[in-house]
Amino acid sequence: MNNTQYTKYLFDKVRDISKANPGVIRDTYGYGENLTHKFLIKELKKFKTKITIDYGGNFLASYEGKKRKTVVIGSHLDSQKHGGNYDGLAGVIMGIIVIKNLFEKKITPKYSIAVMGIRGEESCWFPYSYIGSKIALGKFDKKLLHSLKRTDTQKSLYDHINLAGFDSKKVSRNKINFDISNIKYFIEPHIEQGPVLEKKKIPLGIVTGIRGSFRYRDAYCVGEYLHSGATPFEYRKDTVVAVSMLVNEMNNLWQKELKKNKDLVITFGQFSTDHEQHSFAKSSGLVQFCIDVRSNSNKTLQLINKRFFEKIKIIEKKTKTKFFLGNQTNSEPALMDKKLIKIFQKFSNENSIKFETMASGAGHDASVFANNGVPSIMLFIRNKNGSHNPKEYMSIEQFMKVLKVLSGIIEKDRL
Amino acid sequence: MNNTQYTKYLFDKVRDISKANPGVIRDTYGYGENLTHKFLIKELKKFKTKITIDYGGNFLASYEGKKRKTVVIGSHLDSQKHGGNYDGLAGVIMGIIVIKNLFEKKITPKYSIAVMGIRGEESCWFPYSYIGSKIALGKFDKKLLHSLKRTDTQKSLYDHINLAGFDSKKVSRNKINFDISNIKYFIEPHIEQGPVLEKKKIPLGIVTGIRGSFRYRDAYCVGEYLHSGATPFEYRKDTVVAVSMLVNEMNNLWQKELKKNKDLVITFGQFSTDHEQHSFAKSSGLVQFCIDVRSNSNKTLQLINKRFFEKIKIIEKKTKTKFFLGNQTNSEPALMDKKLIKIFQKFSNENSIKFETMASGAGHDASVFANNGVPSIMLFIRNKNGSHNPKEYMSIEQFMKVLKVLSGIIEKDRL
Repeated sequence: MNNTQYTKYLFDKVRDISKANPGVIRDTYGYGENLTHKFLIKELKKFKTKITIDYGGNFLASYEGKKRKTVVIGSHLDSQKHGGNYDGLAGVIMGIIVIKNLFEKKITPKYSIAVMGIRGEESCWFPYSYIGSKIALGKFDKKLLHSLKRTDTQKSLYDHINLAGFDSKKVSRNKINFDISNIKYFIEPHIEQGPVLEKKKIPLGIVTGIRGSFRYRDAYCVGEYLHSGATPFEYRKDTVVAVSMLVNEMNNLWQKELKKNKDLVITFGQFSTDHEQHSFAKSSGLVQFCIDVRSNSNKTLQLINKRFFEKIKIIEKKTKTKFFLGNQTNSEPALMDKKLIKIFQKFSNENSIKFETMASGAGHDASVFANNGVPSIMLFIRNKNGSHNPKEYMSIEQFMKVLKVLSGIIEKDRL
Repeated sequence: MNNTQYTKYLFDKVRDISKANPGVIRDTYGYGENLTHKFLIKELKKFKTKITIDYGGNFLASYEGKKRKTVVIGSHLDSQKHGGNYDGLAGVIMGIIVIKNLFEKKITPKYSIAVMGIRGEESCWFPYSYIGSKIALGKFDKKLLHSLKRTDTQKSLYDHINLAGFDSKKVSRNKINFDISNIKYFIEPHIEQGPVLEKKKIPLGIVTGIRGSFRYRDAYCVGEYLHSGATPFEYRKDTVVAVSMLVNEMNNLWQKELKKNKDLVITFGQFSTDHEQHSFAKSSGLVQFCIDVRSNSNKTLQLINKRFFEKIKIIEKKTKTKFFLGNQTNSEPALMDKKLIKIFQKFSNENSIKFETMASGAGHDASVFANNGVPSIMLFIRNKNGSHNPKEYMSIEQFMKVLKVLSGIIEKDRL
């Protein structure tokens, strides 16, 4: 099979293994994820790779180069519940084709090249992200092994790791069996989850950083339910007005920061009056909402957080309402390696492959590697209809364009 | 019993008759409303009044004056489901005390004075307002007699009128048995449903007009659910942002019109993302909302409606969303009689009773009389905690202050 045929075969086969109606289900440490790992390991054995499986069930399939130092190409193999077939999987399959090329062309690259299949990246099975990559790097907080329960089975992560045939006890001691100090670079190809490449008809995204975030998931604003016809402006305590003001102010702030070339996204994904009590004939006494702010700069996140509180104070006074924000959750931004970014930009230019240099808005395993000292980079593949849904669609043609860059750089020893 | 004792007795007795847990239930053409009518008619007979009951069950208790022309003091006797005891009832009881005073002081006023107890004003029993006053004036749309079903029993208005002992057939022919052309003025005392008198510690509201309205009860805005981290500003179709903009724009417009001394209230009582699909990690593709706009000027309502559409057009473009407004419902504003307003203002000033000249934000039977050519006025009584809820609270002391004005004007033939 040529590369296009083989790529298609791999995607189709994994789709069959994990088929659900609609989309696919590759559940963390469950049937879908386990079978996908087994199938891809079997395929990787065809190309003279050495397979290692760690205590948490991640696999590393290494093709020997001139040096022991290893360039790891990888991504996760779990999916969302009824997710799409390309999210995660595309990165692992691209690694496989890179090695297939080396094997078929009988090239011995400067560094050893390994494909990594990672467990449990999505937070929908266990309410926690990057389980697999954190276990692989010996950075998993052992207390979570018992406290995290799978959202469907209610069994603990500890039990699920054992049930899938791996070793929870060793994981709890942060034992690792990949030689991490040996990893030269971590490269994660991944479908783009936003619309930028598709809209601009550009095949490759070279990622500068993975955005960190702060979030208030359970915020609310309290005012008073008052007669809509009989309550004058000055006596209102209208929470719809208050939270709308906040949405507007934050949206204007976002635009202002974009003009200063700051990396930033701000989203109020939920905004809801109380279905039990709201009415067209009353101003609303309660609005529940959430806010998600992301940036690849910690400084920007801190600034926006500060402005957010300032704006709330002013709005509370203006509208005679009170905001309750609840817990803040956050994640750290992760910068991709500048040297790697330049290598990929230069090679793409030389080969007339159009690219967009961009931040990743979604979180990825690459952030765990980058934040633990491994120089990392992500390559985005053009993709339709977003991700985390059955309609996500990456064409094999687009995949091949990114492969051309990655394979070229490795075969020509440009790293 | 003196006036204070008797007033308290009437309120307490009606509360007993219609007691529910919590609040009161005086259901239109049902048990609570029927018993309240019977009780008050019995009381009115004590003061030498002539009782007429019309085909729709409204009563008129007339105390003879020098002229046949009659000044009607009245309000409705139905309540909300688990409503408060004062809404509606206060106006009828005030009429009774006015007549009690005339009777006890042996005064024959210039005009005959009648107390009217009106049926079915609230739209919670049948989804339609002012049933009683429209029937009394022969203005009830007969098609509605069969189509309106009581929200709890599912029986038609036609059946309920008959079951309560009245005459649906005559109502359907718009037969009336009060001599409407004989009504000189209609006066409706009523608790204030907003907070203005309570906040300003003023006992009397002299009402200039009853606001009309336009409403979109089932409006929504459609955009697209997009990844909150991965979708840049320029690709968003965020309905929370769009509808928040609209709320802000309309709120600013409201403030602007108030500065021009226009009578206006604007309320978005409901604003809700879709609980099935919204998430903190997606911009929202759907917001459902409603808007209620009220003014005592038709011109202002038309202007605001026009601006509303203009603003939506601009916001749709800016945010790449689409608004669907659904059906518009409206009601006509009703102006209170200017001569009557002046009489009440002058008399209050002479007697050092503080008053606020103000619009009524809620609808009332007085609007039906005014819009059918009867010079009308409403008097608001200071009231705590709004209305339509068990906590509404009018003190007898506040009631007596308004009574003093109304009784004084009638006894001194100032009308």
